[in-house]
Order: sequence, then C-alpha cells, then structure tokens
Amino acid sequence: MSAVKALVLNASLKNSGETSNTEGLAEKVVEILQKEGAETEIIRLSDYHIPYGISADLGEGDEWPGIFEKVKAADIVLIGTPLWLGEKSSLSSIAIERLYGSSSETNEKGQSIFYNKVGGVIITGNEDGAKHAAASVLYGMSNIGFVIPPNADAYWVGEAGPGPSYLEQEGEENEFTQKHIKMLAYNTLHLARFFKENPIPAVGNTINE
Amino acid sequence: MSAVKALVLNASLKNSGETSNTEGLAEKVVEILQKEGAETEIIRLSDYHIPYGISADLGEGDEWPGIFEKVKAADIVLIGTPLWLGEKSSLSSIAIERLYGSSSETNEKGQSIFYNKVGGVIITGNEDGAKHAAASVLYGMSNIGFVIPPNADAYWVGEAGPGPSYLEQEGEENEFTQKHIKMLAYNTLHLARFFKENPIPAVGNTINE
Amino acid sequence: MSAVKALVLNASLKNSGETSNTEGLAEKVVEILQKEGAETEIIRLSDYHIPYGISADLGEGDEWPGIFEKVKAADIVLIGTPLWLGEKSSLSSIAIERLYGSSSETNEKGQSIFYNKVGGVIITGNEDGAKHAAASVLYGMSNIGFVIPPNADAYWVGEAGPGPSYLEQEGEENEFTQKHIKMLAYNTLHLARFFKENPIPAVGNTINE
Amino acid sequence: MSAVKALVLNASLKNSGETSNTEGLAEKVVEILQKEGAETEIIRLSDYHIPYGISADLGEGDEWPGIFEKVKAADIVLIGTPLWLGEKSSLSSIAIERLYGSSSETNEKGQSIFYNKVGGVIITGNEDGAKHAAASVLYGMSNIGFVIPPNADAYWVGEAGPGPSYLEQEGEENEFTQKHIKMLAYNTLHLARFFKENPIPAVGNTINE
Repeated sequence: MSAVKALVLNASLKNSGETSNTEGLAEKVVEILQKEGAETEIIRLSDYHIPYGISADLGEGDEWPGIFEKVKAADIVLIGTPLWLGEKSSLSSIAIERLYGSSSETNEKGQSIFYNKVGGVIITGNEDGAKHAAASVLYGMSNIGFVIPPNADAYWVGEAGPGPSYLEQEGEENEFTQKHIKMLAYNTLHLARFFKENPIPAVGNTINE
Repeated sequence: MSAVKALVLNASLKNSGETSNTEGLAEKVVEILQKEGAETEIIRLSDYHIPYGISADLGEGDEWPGIFEKVKAADIVLIGTPLWLGEKSSLSSIAIERLYGSSSETNEKGQSIFYNKVGGVIITGNEDGAKHAAASVLYGMSNIGFVIPPNADAYWVGEAGPGPSYLEQEGEENEFTQKHIKMLAYNTLHLARFFKENPIPAVGNTINE
Repeated sequence: MSAVKALVLNASLKNSGETSNTEGLAEKVVEILQKEGAETEIIRLSDYHIPYGISADLGEGDEWPGIFEKVKAADIVLIGTPLWLGEKSSLSSIAIERLYGSSSETNEKGQSIFYNKVGGVIITGNEDGAKHAAASVLYGMSNIGFVIPPNADAYWVGEAGPGPSYLEQEGEENEFTQKHIKMLAYNTLHLARFFKENPIPAVGNTINE
Repeated sequence: MSAVKALVLNASLKNSGETSNTEGLAEKVVEILQKEGAETEIIRLSDYHIPYGISADLGEGDEWPGIFEKVKAADIVLIGTPLWLGEKSSLSSIAIERLYGSSSETNEKGQSIFYNKVGGVIITGNEDGAKHAAASVLYGMSNIGFVIPPNADAYWVGEAGPGPSYLEQEGEENEFTQKHIKMLAYNTLHLARFFKENPIPAVGNTINE
C-alpha cells in the first residue's frame, strides 16, 4: 500500500512571512503523521491568490485549481483556522466554499470526489470559539463527502479575554491540547488506511442515482 | 419613574443546594444593577419543575407560568448558562423554548409581549463555547422581541481543557470579564431606562398587522 | 458477523401519543436499514423520565441508564430532533449531555465507549435550522467518540415562515430529502459493518494514556 | 434632526454585473426606509477590493477605508449575505473581520465607534441556514458596539434542497418574509431615531476605563 498523504490547508489570515499560531499547532500533528510514515504538506492559503466564489476555477490568476489537485491526491485533509469574534477565519470560509464548488465532481464509482478521504480541523485563538468553529468546519467537510473520525479536532484557546495565542502562551504545554493533537493525528491516520484499502461501497450514495 | 426591574434566569443544571459558577458571575452583574437602583432577582431554574414543550402552560405541576409572570414584570431579562460540549445548557434551551411558547402574547399596542424589554446573557464554563452560546441566546431573545444592547454578554472561560470554572479558578480577577460584567450591567440599565420612558412605536411591528 | 444494530433516539418534545414529524422521517431511514438486514429500534425519548445533568445515573426514577444500555449495544446511533427557533430541541440537548456524562467509560481497549459506533442525525422543522442543528449534534457525537460518515444528516424543512412540517407538507415527496435519507442509511450501515470487523486500533486514542 | 442614514453592505459573492437575490430583498427594506425619510445606500462589497485581515487599513489598493467612512456616517448598518453550506458568505466574514479591525476606535465620549448605531441582517438562500447566519452576524455586531433591535433579521429560504432563490422563486410573495422586512425596517428606524437624540450614556461602557 502506498503511503498515506496528508494535506493541511492553513487558513491563517497572515501569510508565511509571519508566524502563525495555527501552523505551530499543525506542525505538531504533522510530526506524528510523518513519524508514522505519512507524506505531509502544509499549505499557507494566504500565500496564494484564492478569490471567493462557488466554482472550481474562477479564471485568470485563480490559484485554487492547483491547490485542489493536492486535495484530490490527499487521503487526509485538515483545515487549520484562527478565531476572530469566536468564528473561523474568512479565509477558511473561502476554502470551504471552494471545496463545495467542486463537490459535484465524482470518483470513478460516481460518489463525491471527497469520499474515502478523512477530514479534521486544527484551531488556535487567544480565547473562545474553537468548538463552534470545529463544528462548522467538520460539518461542511462531512456534507461534501469526507469521513470524520472520532476526536477530529485539535485546538488551543486561552482564558477569556485578549492576549497572545498558542505559541507565545506556551500552549504547547497544555496536556489536553497535546492529547487531542495525538487523537487527531492517529484517528485520521487509522481511518485513512482503512478507506484506502476498503473504499466505501457505491451503494446508496452516488451523486446521480 | 419606577425602579428598573432586572431578572436573571440561571439555567445551571445544578439546583441551589450546589454552588453555581454562573450564579457567581451573575451576582457581580446584579451588584452593579442594585447599586444603580434597580430591583433584582436571580431565579435558579433547576429549583422549579419546568417541563419542556412549546406552550405557555403545560398543565398540572408546571411552575413555568409563575416564572413567566416575573418575566413579564421585568425590564431586563438575563439568561445565565453553563457550557457543556461548547453549547448552552439543556435547561437554558428549555427556558428559551418556553419563552417562545408565549411569544404570541402581545402588549396593549399589539407588539410582542417582550417589546421594550432588554435582554442579555451570562455564561461560565471551564473552557470554550461562550461566544457561540451567547450568539444563540441573544438571537433567540431578539427573535421574540427583546432589544439587545451593545456588549450584552458577560462570560468567563478558562484555557482549553477540563478543569474548574469561574469561582474556583479566580475568574473574578479576570479584567476582561470584569469589564464585560460592567458593560452588560450598565448597557442593559441604560436601555431599560430609555424604553420605559420611550416605548418603541407600534408602527411596522405589531404581531397581527 | 452478527446483524448491525441501529438505534434512533427521537428527541421530539411530543410523547408517543402525538404524531412526530421527526419520527416520520426516521421511519424512512429505518425502512432501508431493515431491508438491508439491520436490527432497528426507535425510542421516543419523551416517553421516558430523563432528567438533565452530567452523570451516567441521576438516581431514583432516572430512566436514562436503561436507554444507555441500548446505546452501548448499538452499532449505529441516530439522534432525531425537531427545530425550535432554528435550534435543536432541548430534549436532544439533554440526550447529548447525558451521553457526555458517560463518556469517560471505556471499552476493553481503553478507548471511549463510543468508539467504533457510527453517528448520524435526523431533523425536521417547518423552516430553517437543519444544518446548524446537524453541525451541533454531529460535532457532539464526534467529540465523544462516534465516527461520522459522509452525508450523515437527513432533514426536511419548508420555506421561510410558520406552517406545517414534514408529514403534513408532503415532505416525503422531496427528492433531496429522499436522497439524503438513503445516503444516511447506507453510509451509516457501510461504516458500521467496517468497524464491527475492523475496530479502530487503540493507538493514540485511549482515554488515559 | 437630520435624516437617518442607512447603509446596506451586501456580501453577495457575485459582483454587480449579476443579479443578487440578497440585493433583491435588501431593496424591499430600503424602499420602506426611504418612504419614511431615511437616506439609504446599498454597497455591493464584491465590486470593491477588500482584502482579509484584522486591520483598519491593509495598505495599497485596499478599498475598505472608503467603505468604513460610510459605516461611520451611518445610523443603521445592515449586512446582507447569501447562504453557502448553511453559513453566511466568506465575504460577509471579511466585512465583519474588517469592522472588528476598527473596533478600538472610539467616539468623542470614549465608547466604541459603533455605539448608538443600529444593526440588522438580510439573508437569502435556496434553503436553510438563515437563523444561524443571523445569529452569527448580529452577535458580531453587538459585540463591537451596535444595538440590535427586536426582529433584526429579514430572510427568505426555500424548502430543503437545491434550487433557485428569493427572486426566481417568488419569495417576494412570502408573507412571513414580507412581515419581517417591515419589522427590520421599522425597528432599525425607530431605534436609530432614539439613539440619535438620546445617545447611550458613557457610563460603564467606555473602552479604556
């Protein structure tokens, strides 16, 4: 069996010239995945020109189609997002809308192109909003065809109020966050291996039946 | 002008034999309201028999109608809730459903009975979920007729992961929470005074027009 | 291999003396599951005394422990809920809180007792709120250990505004709803069969490691 | 007293070369506001270059600062959004993040610049998601300083499943939607007039106290 491929779409509003706390947490997940033999890639979405719109390709200058090829090749897709006003970032919304814009594409059995892929979410914020953002991202992924494993979210948030986030606040020391990083990495990996070998039967779930 | 009346419906799952962190935070809000001359009452909903159902009165043994009389007499209504799995408590959902069950009642001008009342929310949890719960509670209140002032939520949550809540964690020392307690108390009070003297005109907003 | 067992927890606010639109939709899902050889049961939660509280057993008169035995025996658990003010019912919140109250129980490998079970959600309302309620229920289930298959929600809602629900409005004729009933039934079934034969390895995901 | 100024920020993903259902509904709200003497403007956000980021001005080419001047001059701000996957549009998230990026600006009394402004929301979708999107938008607005009147949302969604939206589906005939258009217009107007004459006292709610 070929190696499991894992792709992280980091929807931080900051481009890669700046430190992203979400990327800091994503790297912990990726470390485990690599140690277990997965091929991994983290994409900082803000480094690319990704216009909004419900379409697979929005024309000249749109760099989403290149990213979408990587989504199609991946077995695990993790969306990373910071929190603003207790919500996922606008860029993560753009990414989910763009994924949705391609959700009528099918695999060779007629299921959504996202079937047999495993989804998860990575979240950081200085405070509050992680579970709400996780529910929103994971529901969107499930809705377009991803499998969601148990404990598919890893996050860090601090105490109520403004302040620094994961990396500056030593969020890496948080045992709860560490444990959920591990659960997210292993559960996406366990399920990705399953579904690579045992794809979901195309009974009752093809797009045009 | 008569004193402003403020009512807190504390939807803690624990009855008044046990310490409620949400009540601890509510008391801070109530202190300010009292200092400014308001009459206040905190009701621990779990001390009463309040069945679920979309109705003003669910019959024998239902203690909601007595509580609803206090809602009708109040100028400010604050819903207090703990967080479980990042969501408001089931008992707060029951309270909102019951308020909704009475939302076809009108005042003498034909507006919803909740017009000219001011709503707000008080939330505590060991971690994460406050803004989502606040959005849900405040939207429900706005939907049935309450005015929502700026900064209508006061909350405390701790860092990601399990652990003690507001009272045990010295949440009272949190400056952000202190500031929002003050904003919630003063803004509900300012607006309640406005609308007692200047009720919303019954133009464009009566239930049966 | 023994038959797959599917359990529907219908959190309608009406007891079984009254017609539940949610149950009407649940029956469509159950028909498919039965046709494919699953053993099924629909429980109308409002027929039982289920107090709120975060505990496996709330003492005298609490009928949740009996229901929880059925949850433990099930391979598929579907939560059914109506919509009020665009939110899942208070009774569905009670059910999720009670499931959470038992989430520290482990299977023989030390994983959450809900591992290898497949979750899904069934929703009806006269209008609006289904996706939000689905996201909330499915996130709660994923958080305590359930696997969420693709397209794990089947729902019907009507056009904006008050009015009758699924059964009275001929929601059964809605092709989108029919298709999602089928996807929910088959995908929960496909995955339940997988995980009965291939339980998730106890690596990286046990509760006390 | 000068005329009330109302500004609609339409966060449709389509630019003004294409028909926006959300704009169709917004125009109904605006008609009433104009009839009652308000000055109104609808801005199609997608016609402008508005990058994402938490800042008042993101530098060269950023057209948000010009829009923000209009927000500051307005008494009523309405955010319009379509629904995708049951969520508000990514562009509405960008708008809210940008508003938040300016929320440390204060008026001459030291309150948030948004104090005494009245907020509301306009939503269209082919199906489901309006109340959730409304709760999210209205909470965000309340959080940065807007007052939210009763019944501050006007929306149209169709029956479950894909299909055309408000304009093509004769959503204009929907009595519930008509009524809520009226309530949104009149309640934002009533409250905007109040707060122009009676600004919220700067007691307990200034940013730096």
